[in-house]
Amino acid sequence: MTKMAAEARLAPTPLLKDELDIVIPTIRNLDFLEMWRPFFQPYHLIIVQDGDPSKTIRVPEGFDYELYNRNDINRILGPKASCISFKDSACRCFGYMVSKKKYIYTIDDDCFVAKDPTGKGINALEQHIKNLLCPSTPFFFNTLYDPYREGADFVRGYPFSLRDGAPTAVSHGLWLNIPDYDAPTQLVKPLERNSRYVDAVLTIPKGTLFPMCGMNLAFDRELIGPAMYFGLMGDGQPIGRYDDMWAGWCTKVICDHLGLGVKTGLPYIWHSKASNPFVNLKKEYKGIFWQEELIPFFQEVVLPKECTTVQKCYLELAKQVKAELSKVDDYFNKLADAMVTWIEAWDELNPGGAKSAALPSGASK
Amino acid sequence: MTKMAAEARLAPTPLLKDELDIVIPTIRNLDFLEMWRPFFQPYHLIIVQDGDPSKTIRVPEGFDYELYNRNDINRILGPKASCISFKDSACRCFGYMVSKKKYIYTIDDDCFVAKDPTGKGINALEQHIKNLLCPSTPFFFNTLYDPYREGADFVRGYPFSLRDGAPTAVSHGLWLNIPDYDAPTQLVKPLERNSRYVDAVLTIPKGTLFPMCGMNLAFDRELIGPAMYFGLMGDGQPIGRYDDMWAGWCTKVICDHLGLGVKTGLPYIWHSKASNPFVNLKKEYKGIFWQEELIPFFQEVVLPKECTTVQKCYLELAKQVKAELSKVDDYFNKLADAMVTWIEAWDELNPGGAKSAALPSGASK
Repeated sequence: MTKMAAEARLAPTPLLKDELDIVIPTIRNLDFLEMWRPFFQPYHLIIVQDGDPSKTIRVPEGFDYELYNRNDINRILGPKASCISFKDSACRCFGYMVSKKKYIYTIDDDCFVAKDPTGKGINALEQHIKNLLCPSTPFFFNTLYDPYREGADFVRGYPFSLRDGAPTAVSHGLWLNIPDYDAPTQLVKPLERNSRYVDAVLTIPKGTLFPMCGMNLAFDRELIGPAMYFGLMGDGQPIGRYDDMWAGWCTKVICDHLGLGVKTGLPYIWHSKASNPFVNLKKEYKGIFWQEELIPFFQEVVLPKECTTVQKCYLELAKQVKAELSKVDDYFNKLADAMVTWIEAWDELNPGGAKSAALPSGASK
Repeated sequence: MTKMAAEARLAPTPLLKDELDIVIPTIRNLDFLEMWRPFFQPYHLIIVQDGDPSKTIRVPEGFDYELYNRNDINRILGPKASCISFKDSACRCFGYMVSKKKYIYTIDDDCFVAKDPTGKGINALEQHIKNLLCPSTPFFFNTLYDPYREGADFVRGYPFSLRDGAPTAVSHGLWLNIPDYDAPTQLVKPLERNSRYVDAVLTIPKGTLFPMCGMNLAFDRELIGPAMYFGLMGDGQPIGRYDDMWAGWCTKVICDHLGLGVKTGLPYIWHSKASNPFVNLKKEYKGIFWQEELIPFFQEVVLPKECTTVQKCYLELAKQVKAELSKVDDYFNKLADAMVTWIEAWDELNPGGAKSAALPSGASK
């Protein structure tokens, strides 16, 4: 085990108070924060209002926050504001862009503190930080799950040269109670609840896509931030509820190319309320068709060696989206343009410039 | 969800009493079976004695079994017996070959009944049967784990065209108490015990290799049997403790090619005793070097389209092992020859012939 991995395992989880922002998209008063107070109060919040900017959002006392509504987004980004969705929680990615921190945690306002099997409230943020601070294992599967966790390790037959792992870019958390189902599944199984607490964190292997949900998600902004674009959804767009999926496919393909890891599993949050399946079906239904062509596209995308930064990867992806997916629907022309605008806006607000990732051996084919 | 998947989810787990053999390699009296009696007694056992054939192995009363020692193997296979290891539990694969059943469960004689978190004894075999009878999802990752389990499903963003899954060929179970560590890890962490019960079954994605442990393993003999060769280990061989790893790498590559699934996770058994790390180091140490070249080999192997049966895949793999790995060590020349002999012996004992797998769309690249 490397020194880094050994330290990640032994050190108490740092709070990262000054290195992490919590991003919350919302249309309502943020009373849900009361339950999170013990865990979130030390952090800075970035609230992105996704509806009518004239409405006032109430934030409970004692939280440190900044709030952006549509007028703020338009003012800050000017014409580039067109890449940020309106009247859809996809607008949350504006918060990723204006943050100046290394890490982001994003959570929906209908998510509450879940309990572990002993009945203890789960500090979801602490677990995400643990996940992000220790490496991932994308190149070979470890059957005892995260080998860096207390009480676990690499099993017999795991190549020693791969035990350093890869830097973790994304930590995807799960949901107890209301599972994240699509509208057809919601309609067919309206009463299904997720009550299975699976005590595991695992790396999604290189080359494998997954459905990334934005409800309970953390990532390293410096490693992967510019890929976390949540697309064009909501007002004036033909599709909704694919914002996080789009971000997940793009992110995973870029992580695979750059040799970065994506983890899923713990922590759980308590997802309180199922959204309306009829409304969801209307938002989703084009996506249900389109994803049948999008998934093969993302499974086969190859990024050239010259793409050594997330920005370069993302612009290349935008080019390929335009070339390959505009035949699926003209929407993808618009989306590809918005992807480019997003990167321009990101670079404008983050003038430090992109860090070049050193492509690790074997990371990219 | 397909009819098959719906039935797999709803039907009570069938016992498959007449369709499954339990294969146990051993050098000692099988007192461990007492604890398994409630679960194993309905089944037929195939015991393969891996040491001195003059020693008598005692089997508790009431079990239905056949027992093969080295003399039996030599008599049945003649000169082809050279492909079966001697004085090593790798000889268990002889049991796979002489079985006439559709399913195999294999377990080590130092494995006992584990308890689930409620304190109930786990019927490992029943869970393996569940795993084998419902499909796998190798082409896309489901974040709520096995979507066919009670209380779970495919999450939002999972392509509908992939929800039929793929037939499950292998069910890889885990171990509480003594984890399956290599000798160096055993030496460094002699006191580590696995006490984490992870309530999950998941599919190892297509294109991802894993360290398959033979301690608690079930598979569909008709789908993948001829790939479950445990290699040349033990007496007269330069290596040990890589028998199951070898079988796992070959099996996974062939499953990926043929569009079959491999699951890992539940069920747990209780692994009672750590083997001697000094003895293990001696057996393993060449493997620790070699695996650094074997893993890239298996990661890059491509099987041609003409390989439509497990046998054809396996013979092609033997050819590539000879061509690519004999430069690592002359041992791989011998192993490649033994792989061919194994298939010849398999076909001799199983004259029904190989079933041609219909390569599913997208299954093989």
